[in-house]
Amino acid sequence: MNYKIKGTYDLLPEDSIKWEYVQNKLKEIFKKYNYKEIRTPIMEYSEVFHREGEFSDMVQKETYNFVDKGNRNITLRPEATAGIMRSVIETKNYAQNDILKYFYIGPNYRYERPQKGRFREFYQFGVEVIGLKSPYVDAEVIMLASDIITEFGLDGVLIKLNSLGDNQSRLKYQKVLKEYFESHKEGLCNDCQTRLDNNPLRILDCKIDGPKEVVKNAPKSIDYLTDSSKVHFETVLKVLDENKINYEIDHNLVRGIDYYSETVFEIHANIKDFGNANTLGGGGAYDNLSTDLGGPELTGIGFSFGMERFVEALEVSGAMPNLEYALDAYIITFDEEYNTFASKVLKDLRDHKVIAEMDYDNKSVKSKMKKAIKANPKYLIFIGEDEVKNNLVSVKDTNTQEQKPMKVKELIKLLGGK
Amino acid sequence: MNYKIKGTYDLLPEDSIKWEYVQNKLKEIFKKYNYKEIRTPIMEYSEVFHREGEFSDMVQKETYNFVDKGNRNITLRPEATAGIMRSVIETKNYAQNDILKYFYIGPNYRYERPQKGRFREFYQFGVEVIGLKSPYVDAEVIMLASDIITEFGLDGVLIKLNSLGDNQSRLKYQKVLKEYFESHKEGLCNDCQTRLDNNPLRILDCKIDGPKEVVKNAPKSIDYLTDSSKVHFETVLKVLDENKINYEIDHNLVRGIDYYSETVFEIHANIKDFGNANTLGGGGAYDNLSTDLGGPELTGIGFSFGMERFVEALEVSGAMPNLEYALDAYIITFDEEYNTFASKVLKDLRDHKVIAEMDYDNKSVKSKMKKAIKANPKYLIFIGEDEVKNNLVSVKDTNTQEQKPMKVKELIKLLGGK
Repeated sequence: MNYKIKGTYDLLPEDSIKWEYVQNKLKEIFKKYNYKEIRTPIMEYSEVFHREGEFSDMVQKETYNFVDKGNRNITLRPEATAGIMRSVIETKNYAQNDILKYFYIGPNYRYERPQKGRFREFYQFGVEVIGLKSPYVDAEVIMLASDIITEFGLDGVLIKLNSLGDNQSRLKYQKVLKEYFESHKEGLCNDCQTRLDNNPLRILDCKIDGPKEVVKNAPKSIDYLTDSSKVHFETVLKVLDENKINYEIDHNLVRGIDYYSETVFEIHANIKDFGNANTLGGGGAYDNLSTDLGGPELTGIGFSFGMERFVEALEVSGAMPNLEYALDAYIITFDEEYNTFASKVLKDLRDHKVIAEMDYDNKSVKSKMKKAIKANPKYLIFIGEDEVKNNLVSVKDTNTQEQKPMKVKELIKLLGGK
Repeated sequence: MNYKIKGTYDLLPEDSIKWEYVQNKLKEIFKKYNYKEIRTPIMEYSEVFHREGEFSDMVQKETYNFVDKGNRNITLRPEATAGIMRSVIETKNYAQNDILKYFYIGPNYRYERPQKGRFREFYQFGVEVIGLKSPYVDAEVIMLASDIITEFGLDGVLIKLNSLGDNQSRLKYQKVLKEYFESHKEGLCNDCQTRLDNNPLRILDCKIDGPKEVVKNAPKSIDYLTDSSKVHFETVLKVLDENKINYEIDHNLVRGIDYYSETVFEIHANIKDFGNANTLGGGGAYDNLSTDLGGPELTGIGFSFGMERFVEALEVSGAMPNLEYALDAYIITFDEEYNTFASKVLKDLRDHKVIAEMDYDNKSVKSKMKKAIKANPKYLIFIGEDEVKNNLVSVKDTNTQEQKPMKVKELIKLLGGK
């Protein structure tokens, strides 16, 4: 069996160097905002995701579920937030009298139809801030999301946002929305007719019904906010205004997972030919996730980006820098009998932090030279009879093409070894 | 459901900072040796691991298997090597006329009894070199493993190694070994009596029978090597000798997975109170894995370390440096009405690469101070009525306790902002 599973991929060195760049830069950005890394398990009890009241397709239809040898119902996490909240509840870290600011980078699993940039085993990065309901926290999270776009050199950052309000607002709005759509039921797709009962909000971002007039004219959640939710949302907007964040309100924005409340948002950039895929990330606040998981009243807000799509966006837009693997020295021996001597030179170089390679293959020097040039080292190191006899190496600068013999010590110095 | 699955763990910031240190340092070491990162999927077709002739407990008893919604038989990878070989075969990257030198860091899955430092969802790091059978390659891989131990500051590095030989050597040895143990069957445990048929080699490292005289006196694999396997192994030892690598030959070393051939090895360090857990990594060569997976004749050699145990070894032995999260500035406002002004100061600092935090909680200044001191920033930034009126911030050096007002620009300069 020599092929991979549909919707999975091999990340090979020509791409892993890009991922490493992205991850390192992300970590720098997260750290500026004082977010710290958390890694929760990929395997969780199914109930962590299959919660009462969670009707999203992602959870209802797309999770990878199985029973382990100990009869546990396990789900491979489809998203990071629920597992992180599970961890916060279990570790009781919410009791530290402070907000928790986490970032994460890791794989998730969804059984969807694979598309360009969308996989079944896919990586997300994002943040969660848990423990304090504050419009300033919401604004910080949104500003961080916006900052990621600009720090990576992507153009046209735009935050689309909306407020679903607190539970009281949401209940009122759901009722109004349900009544509205009940009276326009015939205009809705089959899926949305089902959604009418479970979660009428999801009709608003239905791919089929979303663009229809009936949905565009639907009641807006921000018209049904309680006073405190209204003040909360207005303060978020004020802070974004003052900080010159480019945003617009999108009344149909409700996000795909049912635990969202209050502020919800999506992060867009302007990527050529990306179409709908210009949505690079999204997130929102969640007031009920903790209690749904059997925890205390705890609020949170976060966002996530799809790693594969983000890397693709950087490439397509020209924002991915030209990354190359460094190689300081490449050793070629004129015969296998010099390999042991060469192995000591190699060790000496590496012991001094020099990035060094050696061709171990027993082929002709001509064939070795061909490979060496492809490897593109700063210096070619030749070792033959004379070099071994005199305890030297012949060093060729691949830039100037100059070649001269020297002691290994000199070579290390030349290469800035430590 | 607010608890994690047995054998999984949450990596929280106090530990993720250690993992980040280890991963960054590992990548530096791998790069010195010109190894490049590969990430293969965690989900693979079961056949990638459940191969004919693979009788190890790990594969036979400990894998997480399930059927997906598309009726695929999936296994969560119990180890990295088979998936990497699957990728090499599928991508045909072996045809590049060069050896492939990969490193990896990622999660694996084994349904084992969890023990201290041993989990069901666990991380391994390691390398694979595919495409060239050469004692110099073997020596490089072993020297890299040894280098990891010393570079991280662990004491007492020791490589235990053995040779199983090529297929011809192995067949001969298996036959001799089987005959030997057949005639000593009554002295073996139940498991080993089964192993007699499937894989008599595994009797040698049986936890129960291994220490018995009957096993200690068993025929040794190195006495049954073909000439070429003998020369190969002797050359490995010669290169290790010349490079002063601390090793010893262990005739009972066969490793847990059945695809090993030729050179096999384990990496030990001297960790106080670690007992058997002093084996931090292990590996070996595999001549048959590619053909077992339906690929061409391709040889490989690699090793893996358990991440959790390695981190623990660094901690227990005192080799883990004292790692702390940096925090440059911590903003405290005297009232919520100054929060918007403060949010702009915060953005300005972060835009200049300053690691900055702000207390968004609406509590007393006294309570905020308590939290701020715990966060241990270089500077405390106070913002109240005067500061907003004069467009200044009050800056307190938490080291000297000196406090003075300044412009945000000056603060950025003070903090070395970019």
